[in-house]
Amino acid sequence: MKKIKYLKCILCGSEYEEDDVLYTCPKCGYDGILFVELNYENLNFKKESLINRPQNILRYHELLPIKDVDNSPILNVGMTPLYKSNRLNEFLEIPNLYIKDDGRNPTASFKDRASFVVVKKAMELGFDSITTASTGNAASSLAGITASVGIKSYIFVPDKAPRAKIAQLLAFGAKVFAVKGSYDDAFDLCIKASNEFGWYNRNTAFNPYTIEGKKSVSYEIWEQMNFNVPDKVFVSVGDGVIYSGVYKGFYDLYSLRLIDKIPQVIGVQAEGSSPIVKAFEDGKERVEPIDNPKTIADSICVGYPRNGNMALKLARKYNGKFIKVKDEEILNAIPTLGKLSGVFGEPAGVTPLAGLIKMKNEINPNEKVVVIISGNGLKDIESAIKSTGEPYYVNLDLNEIKKYI
Amino acid sequence: MKKIKYLKCILCGSEYEEDDVLYTCPKCGYDGILFVELNYENLNFKKESLINRPQNILRYHELLPIKDVDNSPILNVGMTPLYKSNRLNEFLEIPNLYIKDDGRNPTASFKDRASFVVVKKAMELGFDSITTASTGNAASSLAGITASVGIKSYIFVPDKAPRAKIAQLLAFGAKVFAVKGSYDDAFDLCIKASNEFGWYNRNTAFNPYTIEGKKSVSYEIWEQMNFNVPDKVFVSVGDGVIYSGVYKGFYDLYSLRLIDKIPQVIGVQAEGSSPIVKAFEDGKERVEPIDNPKTIADSICVGYPRNGNMALKLARKYNGKFIKVKDEEILNAIPTLGKLSGVFGEPAGVTPLAGLIKMKNEINPNEKVVVIISGNGLKDIESAIKSTGEPYYVNLDLNEIKKYI
Repeated sequence: MKKIKYLKCILCGSEYEEDDVLYTCPKCGYDGILFVELNYENLNFKKESLINRPQNILRYHELLPIKDVDNSPILNVGMTPLYKSNRLNEFLEIPNLYIKDDGRNPTASFKDRASFVVVKKAMELGFDSITTASTGNAASSLAGITASVGIKSYIFVPDKAPRAKIAQLLAFGAKVFAVKGSYDDAFDLCIKASNEFGWYNRNTAFNPYTIEGKKSVSYEIWEQMNFNVPDKVFVSVGDGVIYSGVYKGFYDLYSLRLIDKIPQVIGVQAEGSSPIVKAFEDGKERVEPIDNPKTIADSICVGYPRNGNMALKLARKYNGKFIKVKDEEILNAIPTLGKLSGVFGEPAGVTPLAGLIKMKNEINPNEKVVVIISGNGLKDIESAIKSTGEPYYVNLDLNEIKKYI
Repeated sequence: MKKIKYLKCILCGSEYEEDDVLYTCPKCGYDGILFVELNYENLNFKKESLINRPQNILRYHELLPIKDVDNSPILNVGMTPLYKSNRLNEFLEIPNLYIKDDGRNPTASFKDRASFVVVKKAMELGFDSITTASTGNAASSLAGITASVGIKSYIFVPDKAPRAKIAQLLAFGAKVFAVKGSYDDAFDLCIKASNEFGWYNRNTAFNPYTIEGKKSVSYEIWEQMNFNVPDKVFVSVGDGVIYSGVYKGFYDLYSLRLIDKIPQVIGVQAEGSSPIVKAFEDGKERVEPIDNPKTIADSICVGYPRNGNMALKLARKYNGKFIKVKDEEILNAIPTLGKLSGVFGEPAGVTPLAGLIKMKNEINPNEKVVVIISGNGLKDIESAIKSTGEPYYVNLDLNEIKKYI
């Protein structure tokens, strides 16, 4: 029995066998993102099996679209910490708030979850090269994970991507094309290149297995909350793939009858890059791309969200929601999180916290809330310093210290 | 029965009760670093107990100088991955080489191990403020872990510390003094300040419990190698505290009769900052400080190594060794590690790999070797880019891509 029942087009509803389609729905083109439906009734996954499993994404291997656990990338992806910080919770007056620190992944971002599954898939399919377009994190993630197994990676990033992400790419030995244009431009060029050169394409959502990697975060939240789910989960939203992945994980658990409700997932976009929020508020079924998206949170600076339609559909089906926050609110959330929990997030990483702070009054104090921090603050240090100010520059003189304490 | 039998001065051999001394030997002053001898015969630690323990440093709580596991900092320190990378091992022709990726700690460096134990100790002693001098990583680590529990941190770093480490400090809400001088200057000013203002001092080695945190890496290596120890461990050396900590961990296990040999620990210094190598080669018992240490590996740029004498003593007792490498060899090790394993290290982080590469011909292919990568490459991205070159800047044109592949 195959793990995957079918892949279903989010637009026209056509269903495909796993072996008959590589990326999107042939009828609907690049917007025809495929949703992976598993053979839930036949999957042999039990929570009791988890006890002696490795502390990484492979602990859920029965639920991943991979053949086996052998010959997997060596990097330890997932099983990132879920923290309860009393100080943050008191400040926000939300006693049951949890921080999922996904900046603890191998390349310091949530994207490792998708890259792990896609690279494993590429190996099973026999590709020796992979490509992706990325605002930065998906790229450095793909480069790191391919380096660990010896697959070549070709990366397309906007030329304005933060230096830290560029440095990672180069250190991992990727061929890096810094595209003079936006992320959306890089995305298009990457698809052209993969068609032309026969590289496997990891582009987010375009490759249906990116969601299948990202969904693992929900399994972990469930396990780390002692096999319970929270009431609300906050995530940042650019393309809408993490958002959809979070729902997909809970959908899997629900379909397996391991949970009896699907949490509300609240997607937070930056105001200058919020086409999904607009479509949600306008009651539209399709997201209208915008020109010139602009936000300090580079990881979610996306004008044409590749998974916006699926994200919208899932939100409508499961009582989800999208809100937007200002760049200033994003920047302020960096030291709020850092000072009150010891977790350092990049701008897009703390965006869901900014969203939570904005809608704090709508949270019932009895609710269990999870905020996913999707990337480490070391990925973009100048934004962090913008949010905190500079240190005190002092001479070797105790009297100078006295002035500042 | 107390866990700690006594604290013994590395210079004069005087022994002290835990409650009678806070930092160094009162007779020998700041160089009288104290070695913590445990009551091995009475410690109730069994490897069988580890099965259901948390995946962090607290899994070894019986062996740490802390009273209990309650009220500990929330950040998940330690239990970093130990990787075997076939590609790296083939390249180096060392089949049993393992990478311990300590850049996966909460603040992305090995130093979290020491900070965790010292902060817990400070809480038990009732301090509400901690200070440290640091080249950067110990500082950001202390700032992160104090933030997680609400203790104030006062940090002294050289004003040339990499921006990434400064950014972390500020995001965690530390008071940061960027001292116009060297790390050694910052160290002295920090001790003066802690004396003056009554802050608990985490300065490395000066505070004996820093080593007691760092030793946890050896417990993990032992556990992750299925309760065996390697033949050789490579670590970078600045102050000599990680070096001593690695030996201390194995010494504990040996004293507990859990292992029957102590591995050889090879300390690697940067050529421009290598006073311990010099003392070792000259057969000296004391390390002679040098003026104006200089290396690209900022974390180990130390003229006056605070734990040099203990490191020398341990090396002589247990067949250890110190070698030095050039900055160029350090820089080259960044892409070597990145491309062949997917692990991204900062300059000091990859220094032990540079050392291993240098003495590769002295390694017996049957030997088990561990290289400890002590900090993530995101801590110093400009050095990384120096080692790799820049990306290809391209227009939205497939023909430009063709030129480069």
